[in-house]
Amino acid sequence: MTRILSNEDIEQFLSIESCIEDLEQSYRDLHEGSAVTRQRSDTLVPTSGDRIYGLKTMDGIAPRMGMSAVRINSDIVSWPLIAGTRRRVKIPAAPNERYTGLVLVFSTETGEPLAIMPDGVIQRMRVGATSALGAKYMARESAKTVAVLGSGWQAGAQVMAICAVREITEVRCYSPNAERRAAFVAEMQGRVQATLVDCSSPEQAVRDAEIVLCATNAIEPVFLPQWTQPGQHLGSIKMSELAPAVLKEAHQVAVHLGHSKPLLVKAQGLEVPDHSAGLGWQMADAYDFKACPTLPQLVMGEVQGRSSDTDVTCFVNDLGLGLQFAVVAARCVTIANAENIGHQLPTDWFTEDVHP
Amino acid sequence: MTRILSNEDIEQFLSIESCIEDLEQSYRDLHEGSAVTRQRSDTLVPTSGDRIYGLKTMDGIAPRMGMSAVRINSDIVSWPLIAGTRRRVKIPAAPNERYTGLVLVFSTETGEPLAIMPDGVIQRMRVGATSALGAKYMARESAKTVAVLGSGWQAGAQVMAICAVREITEVRCYSPNAERRAAFVAEMQGRVQATLVDCSSPEQAVRDAEIVLCATNAIEPVFLPQWTQPGQHLGSIKMSELAPAVLKEAHQVAVHLGHSKPLLVKAQGLEVPDHSAGLGWQMADAYDFKACPTLPQLVMGEVQGRSSDTDVTCFVNDLGLGLQFAVVAARCVTIANAENIGHQLPTDWFTEDVHP
Repeated sequence: MTRILSNEDIEQFLSIESCIEDLEQSYRDLHEGSAVTRQRSDTLVPTSGDRIYGLKTMDGIAPRMGMSAVRINSDIVSWPLIAGTRRRVKIPAAPNERYTGLVLVFSTETGEPLAIMPDGVIQRMRVGATSALGAKYMARESAKTVAVLGSGWQAGAQVMAICAVREITEVRCYSPNAERRAAFVAEMQGRVQATLVDCSSPEQAVRDAEIVLCATNAIEPVFLPQWTQPGQHLGSIKMSELAPAVLKEAHQVAVHLGHSKPLLVKAQGLEVPDHSAGLGWQMADAYDFKACPTLPQLVMGEVQGRSSDTDVTCFVNDLGLGLQFAVVAARCVTIANAENIGHQLPTDWFTEDVHP
Repeated sequence: MTRILSNEDIEQFLSIESCIEDLEQSYRDLHEGSAVTRQRSDTLVPTSGDRIYGLKTMDGIAPRMGMSAVRINSDIVSWPLIAGTRRRVKIPAAPNERYTGLVLVFSTETGEPLAIMPDGVIQRMRVGATSALGAKYMARESAKTVAVLGSGWQAGAQVMAICAVREITEVRCYSPNAERRAAFVAEMQGRVQATLVDCSSPEQAVRDAEIVLCATNAIEPVFLPQWTQPGQHLGSIKMSELAPAVLKEAHQVAVHLGHSKPLLVKAQGLEVPDHSAGLGWQMADAYDFKACPTLPQLVMGEVQGRSSDTDVTCFVNDLGLGLQFAVVAARCVTIANAENIGHQLPTDWFTEDVHP
């Protein structure tokens, strides 16, 4: 049978701890060359109403787990000005105002499709877990206070994940929308042991914070040079969140995989902002991310995250990997099979008796 | 609702004529830059029993039809010696001895997944239709006799497709296995108006044939230089089927899109034959395919297929495109929606309310 899982199913059973553990192992496998990942591609055409239709795919194989995955996003995108900042916004244009993101999981032994699931919870967990691994290898062991800039879906995963790799006692949150921020603080207070603090300015949040995690969808810097303090670890989920001067003055800057930009294939004449990938690629010109050590190198001990307690360290979680979706979705399949969760459809619906 | 179609469904309603027409239009759109296609990628790792697990993906968007597609193959592959020739063989290792090949179709207006279907019939039809378009623009208008080398699944589509673009009266078939050849001749006789002829040698089949179509899975030449005759049009579905000398002596050689090789991502140390893609890439060194005109150029009239009735012309159908799957699968969705064919599942199963 081929299993159909929902975000609700996955949210129920997937722990941030297992994501961190599985991803950490996958970086070892990737570094040794047993696991593989195919560069993300973005294929873009104009669609109605000044919108862009984007088909984004990435693939990965996790032989240790006996599974592979393809992650697919079928997005309707626009770039409105929100609170003075131009943001890339995905429009939930599918029926019932929904987004379309899928992960298909296959067996590396039989080739068969084992499961189809939405990518949302997995995406959130893998981003959080990756940032937490950056912090695990770069932040001070003793770090107890965290500032989170952002109060969205991704920010929540950052909070859960950082609390899994350090003994955090206080999480300060700032984002421009006071109402959403308060709701975020209330929600996250129920998820972690640390005390959540609602901050009305970014300065209040970051002052004396030992770890600062940016988790916004802004495509301009949200963490400014004058806020940097000795010993801090700074994390971002986009290249653009940390101002270039912050990166240039840091003692160590590491990136996720230091991959090249996504493969971009677009209709002739289509004007897409340089930061079309939503990751702030314009920053790639302002800072030499290619020269940075990568998370697999940190995990393998090839480079040290920091050399003293006063170093300022940065981890830029720059680009998702097909392999991340493969390992996290493989874990989901393993758990769902054991606990018999989700809808089941005949595998024959998704296989064939003719040689393709 | 998201529709699940089977090969049997598609075989019922999809005509080779519509495939040829839709593909022809898609080459115009591709040439003008409104339709886009993402290069195929092959991601490979070793798996049990000296086999290789391969995850192959390609994407395309057909804005004219308002749909995009991702084609996925999740293959277990080996390279046994069959009748003295080393062949790439996909093993039907999925339950009930089945293969795994899928096409997912999305709306470019809403992003939603419209359908999921196997790739087998579509793959066969798009290969046949592409070769037929090559013949339409390169073979003599008056051509009436065809030789087909091969008696497999792909050979059948070649027969149907060539009969749709020329007034063919005779189709001669050769393949090494007499029993399978006889069955093929009998089956195809029921599908086309032309007379099918069972030939016990390749020489018998190709002699005086105005069009020769190779449709084998051999990765060494099956059409030899001494068989070439003035005025012939030669088609192949792999770079390796026509001997290099045949290509070098031909007056015009065109290729499908003249794309570079597929993007190959493989586990460290994995030894895959050079012809791993199954298309005979070793031939790319023996002949300069990159200098050849492409099918879109033929369709747009930028180059002429032949300049005289005595020219020998070749069309090498070298590599599938995501766009081909997008347009043919889009046609399937349009027909299936109109006739309400297939299983229907809630679209919500394949979409999500969280921002991915």
